[in-house]
Amino acid sequence: MKILVINPNSARAVTDGIATALAPLGDHFRVCDLADQPATIATEEDVARAGLGVADLVRQQEALAYVTACFSDPGLDLARSLTRRPVIGIQEAGILTALARADRFGIVALGPKSVPRHLRKIRQMGVEARLAGELPLSGVSAEASGRDPAVYAEVLEAAARLRDMGAGAIVLGCAGMAPIRARLEAEIGVAIIDPVMAGAAMALGAVS
Amino acid sequence: MKILVINPNSARAVTDGIATALAPLGDHFRVCDLADQPATIATEEDVARAGLGVADLVRQQEALAYVTACFSDPGLDLARSLTRRPVIGIQEAGILTALARADRFGIVALGPKSVPRHLRKIRQMGVEARLAGELPLSGVSAEASGRDPAVYAEVLEAAARLRDMGAGAIVLGCAGMAPIRARLEAEIGVAIIDPVMAGAAMALGAVS
Amino acid sequence: MKILVINPNSARAVTDGIATALAPLGDHFRVCDLADQPATIATEEDVARAGLGVADLVRQQEALAYVTACFSDPGLDLARSLTRRPVIGIQEAGILTALARADRFGIVALGPKSVPRHLRKIRQMGVEARLAGELPLSGVSAEASGRDPAVYAEVLEAAARLRDMGAGAIVLGCAGMAPIRARLEAEIGVAIIDPVMAGAAMALGAVS
Amino acid sequence: MKILVINPNSARAVTDGIATALAPLGDHFRVCDLADQPATIATEEDVARAGLGVADLVRQQEALAYVTACFSDPGLDLARSLTRRPVIGIQEAGILTALARADRFGIVALGPKSVPRHLRKIRQMGVEARLAGELPLSGVSAEASGRDPAVYAEVLEAAARLRDMGAGAIVLGCAGMAPIRARLEAEIGVAIIDPVMAGAAMALGAVS
Amino acid sequence: MKILVINPNSARAVTDGIATALAPLGDHFRVCDLADQPATIATEEDVARAGLGVADLVRQQEALAYVTACFSDPGLDLARSLTRRPVIGIQEAGILTALARADRFGIVALGPKSVPRHLRKIRQMGVEARLAGELPLSGVSAEASGRDPAVYAEVLEAAARLRDMGAGAIVLGCAGMAPIRARLEAEIGVAIIDPVMAGAAMALGAVS
Amino acid sequence: MKILVINPNSARAVTDGIATALAPLGDHFRVCDLADQPATIATEEDVARAGLGVADLVRQQEALAYVTACFSDPGLDLARSLTRRPVIGIQEAGILTALARADRFGIVALGPKSVPRHLRKIRQMGVEARLAGELPLSGVSAEASGRDPAVYAEVLEAAARLRDMGAGAIVLGCAGMAPIRARLEAEIGVAIIDPVMAGAAMALGAVS
Repeated sequence: MKILVINPNSARAVTDGIATALAPLGDHFRVCDLADQPATIATEEDVARAGLGVADLVRQQEALAYVTACFSDPGLDLARSLTRRPVIGIQEAGILTALARADRFGIVALGPKSVPRHLRKIRQMGVEARLAGELPLSGVSAEASGRDPAVYAEVLEAAARLRDMGAGAIVLGCAGMAPIRARLEAEIGVAIIDPVMAGAAMALGAVS
Repeated sequence: MKILVINPNSARAVTDGIATALAPLGDHFRVCDLADQPATIATEEDVARAGLGVADLVRQQEALAYVTACFSDPGLDLARSLTRRPVIGIQEAGILTALARADRFGIVALGPKSVPRHLRKIRQMGVEARLAGELPLSGVSAEASGRDPAVYAEVLEAAARLRDMGAGAIVLGCAGMAPIRARLEAEIGVAIIDPVMAGAAMALGAVS
Repeated sequence: MKILVINPNSARAVTDGIATALAPLGDHFRVCDLADQPATIATEEDVARAGLGVADLVRQQEALAYVTACFSDPGLDLARSLTRRPVIGIQEAGILTALARADRFGIVALGPKSVPRHLRKIRQMGVEARLAGELPLSGVSAEASGRDPAVYAEVLEAAARLRDMGAGAIVLGCAGMAPIRARLEAEIGVAIIDPVMAGAAMALGAVS
Repeated sequence: MKILVINPNSARAVTDGIATALAPLGDHFRVCDLADQPATIATEEDVARAGLGVADLVRQQEALAYVTACFSDPGLDLARSLTRRPVIGIQEAGILTALARADRFGIVALGPKSVPRHLRKIRQMGVEARLAGELPLSGVSAEASGRDPAVYAEVLEAAARLRDMGAGAIVLGCAGMAPIRARLEAEIGVAIIDPVMAGAAMALGAVS
Repeated sequence: MKILVINPNSARAVTDGIATALAPLGDHFRVCDLADQPATIATEEDVARAGLGVADLVRQQEALAYVTACFSDPGLDLARSLTRRPVIGIQEAGILTALARADRFGIVALGPKSVPRHLRKIRQMGVEARLAGELPLSGVSAEASGRDPAVYAEVLEAAARLRDMGAGAIVLGCAGMAPIRARLEAEIGVAIIDPVMAGAAMALGAVS
Repeated sequence: MKILVINPNSARAVTDGIATALAPLGDHFRVCDLADQPATIATEEDVARAGLGVADLVRQQEALAYVTACFSDPGLDLARSLTRRPVIGIQEAGILTALARADRFGIVALGPKSVPRHLRKIRQMGVEARLAGELPLSGVSAEASGRDPAVYAEVLEAAARLRDMGAGAIVLGCAGMAPIRARLEAEIGVAIIDPVMAGAAMALGAVS
């Protein structure tokens, strides 16, 4: 059995990017997506429906552990109620990993509509005292967030501002952004956290 | 280069136990200890002196990342000021990993004197809203904490009480307790977090 | 147009009890339920599925305002994303109304499984500093919670303990408990909050 | 018996405005003012003296419930110590009602001197995590705040800024501002809370 | 000019006890009381009326600084609005001084009715994370609290319990308790804070 | 025996300035410095090494109480573990004294590198809700901070900004700044706190 990493959207490029990003951790992961969900989880309704899709998958497919690889953590509490295996949400894992790297953290979100949802979650997590800030991109797709040069320019500007606001570690607010992590870290000079890698590493620790 | 896991005490059995525990993660780690420190880091002064020992090591030995493998996180902020490589403290990593597994967490400490120090750190981390409780053992050594059957009985009782106080994940408050993690988890029925494994997995994610 | 009060379970007796309880506020409300949901919303999955049911109703039925009359606030954020009309969740309304009556509040939950979900929500609401405590009943149905004499004895005992823990106002943790509110308040001597009444009054204020 | 709404200043126009604003809720309220208090409660001393005036009234006049209709909540804790009937303060009710409408709230204050007093109260209420911001007008009277076109322009600008700071609901920081609520809500596009209506609705729910 | 220490009750024995307690600090203080107030400030109304008495005194008597020597801090914010001289409240000073001595603090209150008022204030002060607990005596007078052997036995028991609850420093919740401070500290073994001494020392620092 | 005020750096001018500043409190203090430490405690390593120096001194020299007169509070917890006498850290004392003077406080730091360390400490202290802001100077020495006219201009600008950010009391972030306190307070118009005076006054209260 492996750790099942669930991309809750249907963007195959994002799924493939996750698999590529996790390869250095070894042959511990199986990555899948939810074919009947949208290509980007953007609205409250997307999150609610993706959560039920994640739940169905957890019920159907046994795994050593589960990672829900969407930054809105769809279905996280629900999935935990359905299995005794570890279930890691990448928003939680990304933020918590940032907290292990620096005193205050920042988040780059795909668009303005995600920000209030993330802030609610951060308060639910009880870690708001360590938030330096969250800044949105202009509203881009999961796929574009890690591949489009124009989007990279937006990310770079947001990350620079978050660093100047005191963020010692910055969480990328989408599973699609893994391809730009290393370059961004080199250019910004503070820790840049890919939340899928953060979640996968935690899951690996949980089952080792 | 590897990830350097620093056991800041001089208990070789603890160092060996760490190496054994991390083996399933692959050949990424080198584990060392500080020969001129006490066998258990117990007092405020132990923590302060171990912190300088950790700093010296970080200055002298290049590594991909550093994990300070003592639950008082000696020298963590100091080490971070000396290198741009990731430095992970296992108290922080253990607690943060527990937060990725359940809503509220508990801690089993080696003895009563550690508890106030941990509570100060938890408040500094800004995560006190999620603490279900911390319970001390009777004041045992790092080595005994993972090997002595009488101590295991103490751990079992403390963990059961923490679970009943609402802890959905329990952090073992010493690097020496790795050998009892799996058995304890099976007997208690909630996630038991070995903080060294938590820190090592985070370090692995940070360098992958 | 009226204010639509949505009982997200299928217990007709609960729906009728809500209508009876709200009658003194005047002819401002229409109360409905979701026929395809379970009789009590108990599990995480119940909450997730009821949330989508609430969303469908909000999309289909225009109203002056909406009140989601289940103490897990299913679909609250989702419903708000679908309409510009006020949407009031009764868990939020009940707790916030308790805060307008006394310094610290308590909650009586239907059963132990609801408590962690409520605590997460209370932390998300940012009002945990004012929680005196939450105590569960033995796991009873929404309908029984307001009608069964044996359950009333449980409620009485929990409420008395919460009062002794410092709760100056106690929120009934289910829309089904309205019938016992007045009697309980007389016997306990602190404010007892029916969350449906709390939510309905807020909705009335919002549209007046 | 009715619900007694106490305007703790002597501005009859404010008292009349309150009565007008509450009329849609039905014939449940009696509105009075304190003839020997100033026309606007502005200083710390005004608040302290108005508090004793409120207390005297509560002692003298029996009512189903009491609403103290001044945004500094003068005499609130004192009045609660004198009666077992519900006593609702409009600052608390306004803020708590805003929290039932949106994730973060803002406040428009009559003038700069009120802001620190409000911030102390918000921290006492334990809800500061949800404050988007508070902005003062230039220091206007209770009466002018709801009637003077020049003041309305100030209110509009402050409310727009609060919305841009993330406030999803904005509380009007004076009982005199009821007449401009609906227009402001239409122009700003987020929920605008008249605190007197919020307190009256809560009181109505408490006695129904 | 001197520092004016205002005992807001009319218990001359308490006033004299304050003067005796402050003598070791040197000839910097003048101690007075409010002849028209009750012998113990116990109810919300006592606090409100004493606050106006304090305000009158501050307006009438110039001083280098003011210390309001009642643990309910009557009139503190009001007095600050009337003078630019430092105004120190002893509840605030006592608690803050305890925070400079130990990680968590406790309070011994004169009686159960004071506790909720103190808890509100502690939350307003924003220091609730460091409260180990507050325990009330049976409801004794300010004068008896520092002089009656039976009351001392109550204090001793409460202080011992607070120490066992984790309080590293304990604040005496009344200006009348100065005479028992040193003996209690010797018997309990943690720092015991006389709030009047704490406030007087802060005032002395402010004017030196 | 006297109260020992330990300047943990080797800047004799700072030590002399402390003695001068404390003279008005009377002949209660002995001021010393640590000759083998740097002239300014700036880096994490300076703080760690100074902490051990403070500990050695506390072990060697008996005193009525100890004040660690460096704004990073080096060795504070360690010193407390070595003696039952009061040990006061001036960062804690300065901040807590500011909280006794106004609702929100600000800090002027010697340089940008100190700010994150202070923010961690403020969160550990549990008083972050009352921080209006902290602003750094350009990175100046302890000695220059209270003596150099160009530095005074920097301090003045930072203090004015903190006042405008809502700070009602401003803490000088270095033991060397005592000489400019009174002038700054006169020019800025809010309470300016010299942390050494704050700590010394608390120590005096503790031993009187």
